[in-house]
Amino acid sequence: MQNSIPHIVVVGAGFAGLYATRVLAQADVRVTLVDRRNHHTFQPLLYQVATAALSPGEIAYPIRHIFKDNDNVSVLLAQVTGFDLQHRKVLLDTDKLSYDYLIVAAGATHAYFGHPEWETYAPGLKTVEDATEIRRRMLLAFEIAERRARFSHIQQDINFVVIGGGPTGVELAGAIAEIARHVLASDFRSIDPRSTRVLLIEAGPRILASFPEELSASAERQLRALGVEVLTGTPVTGIDQSHVCLDGRSLPASVVLWAAGVSASPLGKLLGAPIDRAGRVRVEPDLTLPGYPDVFVVGDMASIKQENGRPVPGVAPAAIQMGRFAADTILAELEGEDRKKFHYNDKGSLATIGRSSAVADIKGLKVSGHIAWFVWLFVHLVSLIGFKSRAQVLWEWFWAYITFHRGARLITGASRVIIPASAKSVWQSALQETDFQDHKAA
Amino acid sequence: MQNSIPHIVVVGAGFAGLYATRVLAQADVRVTLVDRRNHHTFQPLLYQVATAALSPGEIAYPIRHIFKDNDNVSVLLAQVTGFDLQHRKVLLDTDKLSYDYLIVAAGATHAYFGHPEWETYAPGLKTVEDATEIRRRMLLAFEIAERRARFSHIQQDINFVVIGGGPTGVELAGAIAEIARHVLASDFRSIDPRSTRVLLIEAGPRILASFPEELSASAERQLRALGVEVLTGTPVTGIDQSHVCLDGRSLPASVVLWAAGVSASPLGKLLGAPIDRAGRVRVEPDLTLPGYPDVFVVGDMASIKQENGRPVPGVAPAAIQMGRFAADTILAELEGEDRKKFHYNDKGSLATIGRSSAVADIKGLKVSGHIAWFVWLFVHLVSLIGFKSRAQVLWEWFWAYITFHRGARLITGASRVIIPASAKSVWQSALQETDFQDHKAA
Repeated sequence: MQNSIPHIVVVGAGFAGLYATRVLAQADVRVTLVDRRNHHTFQPLLYQVATAALSPGEIAYPIRHIFKDNDNVSVLLAQVTGFDLQHRKVLLDTDKLSYDYLIVAAGATHAYFGHPEWETYAPGLKTVEDATEIRRRMLLAFEIAERRARFSHIQQDINFVVIGGGPTGVELAGAIAEIARHVLASDFRSIDPRSTRVLLIEAGPRILASFPEELSASAERQLRALGVEVLTGTPVTGIDQSHVCLDGRSLPASVVLWAAGVSASPLGKLLGAPIDRAGRVRVEPDLTLPGYPDVFVVGDMASIKQENGRPVPGVAPAAIQMGRFAADTILAELEGEDRKKFHYNDKGSLATIGRSSAVADIKGLKVSGHIAWFVWLFVHLVSLIGFKSRAQVLWEWFWAYITFHRGARLITGASRVIIPASAKSVWQSALQETDFQDHKAA
Repeated sequence: MQNSIPHIVVVGAGFAGLYATRVLAQADVRVTLVDRRNHHTFQPLLYQVATAALSPGEIAYPIRHIFKDNDNVSVLLAQVTGFDLQHRKVLLDTDKLSYDYLIVAAGATHAYFGHPEWETYAPGLKTVEDATEIRRRMLLAFEIAERRARFSHIQQDINFVVIGGGPTGVELAGAIAEIARHVLASDFRSIDPRSTRVLLIEAGPRILASFPEELSASAERQLRALGVEVLTGTPVTGIDQSHVCLDGRSLPASVVLWAAGVSASPLGKLLGAPIDRAGRVRVEPDLTLPGYPDVFVVGDMASIKQENGRPVPGVAPAAIQMGRFAADTILAELEGEDRKKFHYNDKGSLATIGRSSAVADIKGLKVSGHIAWFVWLFVHLVSLIGFKSRAQVLWEWFWAYITFHRGARLITGASRVIIPASAKSVWQSALQETDFQDHKAA
């Protein structure tokens, strides 16, 4: 360590990187936070953008602005291409960044279990772009059906298939069912959106497998009440443009969404350390890279076990705790203190299902329905970055809540729906399959 | 006319088509409103999306939702490819729509005066996608400069060049100057956004040429006070990736925006009628296509003169009046009444320049500065479609207004800034020109 102010490079501005930087920003160190996007995304609410309830700007916040009052924090929009750990350098596409300590927190991406070709047909939900793409496909499915019905007088089925029964899959399926049943109900003339089928497909024996069994059962009941068909013990064997194949069966699907698996950022491999099957780096008890006490790997990229032998889950609270731990460890070491072991404080699990329905497992206390939903609302509101976003999201939710009673106007969120030029080809090819005449009504 | 309920097809859901449909929705007719987008765009506030003050959802509204309570209005997402006027049919890409009356209101697009190659370097502002592209380029210019400065310790100039001194050019230049001077001021570490140059270039002798001369002069003064350099009498002779050529001079430009000209939708040509130089259809005094009293052409696509010999301008109030007139004419004719001539009621002109600055010419009453700005705010708020959008935009403006005083947090709007994958190549090629080393600060 030279006698200048220590320089810490943080890679990734998700929960882990953001909270690490927040701790470091208060200390006498220099921090460079590198991300290839200019915004932090509040991933727990991303499904609400995908289902047109919130706008991207309400859950994504410019990283630069979060740290604008911290002169010792410098934000860099750049792609990390590799590491030179011997010389303590992070390689960017055209430049190199030197560091005294490095915190790698590049998160995770979708995993298609050896079927990368499925990604085209079944987008996952990790980024704001993913969310707007899902929103586009969802609303376009209704538009295409309306047009076909107008010119053919046949109402084609609209089937949404959500693959993966974890929290994201449950949230997406519930929200889509609500939109079809309530929000879009009076928007169309030739189709009835209420006849939309929403299927949630899970390969394992139950949905929300990380929750206690009684909450899985409760979540399944709540989903069925919303009109979602839940298929458990059903692995997917194939996906194409208009079908999902289960063992032996082929289901027609207007829109397929992927919520079945994630793998860690490919940056893990570039660190040259042992990785697990999901691409996560097997870190030391202090979250450092084996052999490199100056390099921390945190958040969804880190593979580490709790005291009870179970892995630390890939959830936002774990990422936040890891980010803070890495920052605290660095600052303590600069003060001459010894290293400690990371301890995960499991505060519980939450999954929302729809308007006023959710399940929560808080330190063994199991809650379902309205109360769980209010817990969910409270936890997510207080965690949102920035007062304005928080107030605005509350306002959106309040609006959706009251107008739902009045006449299902929740679709206001879909005012953000833009069909970009690039979508036109999909749209046109979808329409060109049909060749109908206009049957003028008498 | 058959004895069934008359069917009116409206092409385009801009101001003209939307307001025509609103009138027809109240009558005993069937209406099909066709648009290739699913949303109506409130174009007068589009520059606020381009400059990150508002989010797309606040000024774009799903067409389908606007007419959800009007069972006689059917909305169709489709591209019009032509007309069969003899058989009263509108041709869509794969289908045909029969009509009893047709209202064509497909609006206008950018015109590059015989230089279509300029479009790549100098995007115009007509759609939500245009606005988000301009926003992306604007914010990326600062990010690129920050990164270069970080690794080279040289602050490169950031130059914004806005071409065209009409209301849109004036609004864009003013808003960009405000963002650079106030909003982004404390967000960067290696550059000072306040040194950004903003140039407004106009070929004619003065900006806001359609306004009285004293208001042009006032607008120019207000722009200069914001730090905008105004160049009048300066035609642009060339644009490339990094420069704008004026007679003999070549100006370096980080971002170039086009606000210099529009031409009517190419659908005008497909109607087979005489068109003017800007591609607008020369309509009859009742806004119909010569020879086709059942076909109306309204809004920015129509070329018609006022009683004073001046053309009806391509502004929102004119489009709204034309749309309503066409609808009223159809309904009156169905009641057996004779045709009337369209009369344009000029209520005045408004252009906003920045926060609290504007010019207004209301029936000869000329106002500048704060008062004009409040008039502008009031007129635009009451015209916004949908109560929620209106409340939300007011909230955004209020927020921007109070925090501007406190510490320039107007950038919250930029939370909507997403750098899409497609931008990466631009970004990378921009960076690859440089090949700097990291100079570690002592």
